[in-house]
Amino acid sequence: MTGKTVVYHIPVCPFSQRLEILLELKGLVEEVEFHKVDITQKRPQWLLNLTRGTTALPILVTPDGKVIKESLVILQYLEQTFADPPIARRGPYERAVENMMVAMEGPFTVTGYTFVMNRDPDRRNKFEADMLGHYGKLNDFLVQHSPSGTFLFDRFGWAEAVFTPLFMRFWFLDYYEGFELPDDDRYARVRKWRDACLAHPAAQQVSREEIVKLYYDYALGAGNGALLPDRQRSSFVFEPHWSARPWPPAAKYDVSASDRELGLLI
Amino acid sequence: MTGKTVVYHIPVCPFSQRLEILLELKGLVEEVEFHKVDITQKRPQWLLNLTRGTTALPILVTPDGKVIKESLVILQYLEQTFADPPIARRGPYERAVENMMVAMEGPFTVTGYTFVMNRDPDRRNKFEADMLGHYGKLNDFLVQHSPSGTFLFDRFGWAEAVFTPLFMRFWFLDYYEGFELPDDDRYARVRKWRDACLAHPAAQQVSREEIVKLYYDYALGAGNGALLPDRQRSSFVFEPHWSARPWPPAAKYDVSASDRELGLLI
Repeated sequence: MTGKTVVYHIPVCPFSQRLEILLELKGLVEEVEFHKVDITQKRPQWLLNLTRGTTALPILVTPDGKVIKESLVILQYLEQTFADPPIARRGPYERAVENMMVAMEGPFTVTGYTFVMNRDPDRRNKFEADMLGHYGKLNDFLVQHSPSGTFLFDRFGWAEAVFTPLFMRFWFLDYYEGFELPDDDRYARVRKWRDACLAHPAAQQVSREEIVKLYYDYALGAGNGALLPDRQRSSFVFEPHWSARPWPPAAKYDVSASDRELGLLI
Repeated sequence: MTGKTVVYHIPVCPFSQRLEILLELKGLVEEVEFHKVDITQKRPQWLLNLTRGTTALPILVTPDGKVIKESLVILQYLEQTFADPPIARRGPYERAVENMMVAMEGPFTVTGYTFVMNRDPDRRNKFEADMLGHYGKLNDFLVQHSPSGTFLFDRFGWAEAVFTPLFMRFWFLDYYEGFELPDDDRYARVRKWRDACLAHPAAQQVSREEIVKLYYDYALGAGNGALLPDRQRSSFVFEPHWSARPWPPAAKYDVSASDRELGLLI
């Protein structure tokens, strides 16, 4: 080791939170330095040099300067590099069960983000149905593999580290879209799992308030720090700090709040 | 072990060939039974029971009757279960390099399949440009991580097992779309890699002729064994055997061959 392992990430990025959760579960948060990148600013050249021009984050830089991209690839790297205690299951079949569940995360994430960014009220019900479809599949998977448990296995583990940051981001669906899991048997098992994930002490890096406030611009259709018309400041700016800003309006289809109303002026 | 490990798969499915290549590299092809499923027929109920209703293949059934889905998940299961010799890299950083390359496979595959299935001549050039974009990224990745080698590491390994079946399927782009990698420096490294992958003795489960003949219906826009109008037989039928049929017409935008012309009548 010639230095520290460093992760460059966007604040409240779910794909970075996975790494933080994994390290927290291992009791090894001090082993990796996390550096925040401001997505409302032009990407600095030294960072573009590190990534060979790509802008997706997080990336991990090893102590000897090698760069790893893709959150699930980084997660696996951390699991192997800081091997004790293991978080992923060790047996081939149990590992496969975890990996099958992780394979369901991509479409789940895409639907949740396109739902919050949708600007067409007529498409809202379709997105809601698609989201419920994903939750239904997760429910079925848990009923099959862990019918009476809380987590997929005996404790919060690999699959939970992958999904929990998304469950937290999807607080923006509850706030801006009024989306809730129906209180019925079709979703009872996934609801139990989600609620236990959200409450787990290793996964408290972000709060509902921070997510709702920072993702306001997503709810109006502007992702990745892009600026909305008539706005000078992104909801992802570092200052004023989100805790000092008012809660944004929840109505996303017919209201567009100003920088001043959002508490973004410095 | 109460029985054999069984894989249910569609003939010429690239995601199944990965598993066969991995076992071939390990010298363990006899350890797993491969059962062909005819996608031109209704999926049998016993198979739907195994998969809990999903139709994607391959699936693996363990000796004690547990079901694993998703080709990359199955690949990892086989790598762990039949651990000697290892095919994936063991060191965390080299494993991450492999996994970063594997993460590029999904978009590569989607573009290749939507390209061959495209029916609009006006969109052809866009698909060609997208395909070249993917090859350019693979070239850059190899230049970064294995500038003077042939494979990503010292031998045909994990990344090669994942990509080679796609390079073989994309013979349908060469035949039906006239798509070729331009003979210039931008693609020299990926061309060297692809050609070595295609020639490797562990990856000879299918031939160009079989792929071109079976995927004819894809070139006319019908995937997964679906029937085209004016046709009674899919190009994926088991009989007549593909080797007994004539080569299909390469012109896909203005010609639609009949069952008789394709040699599909029994």
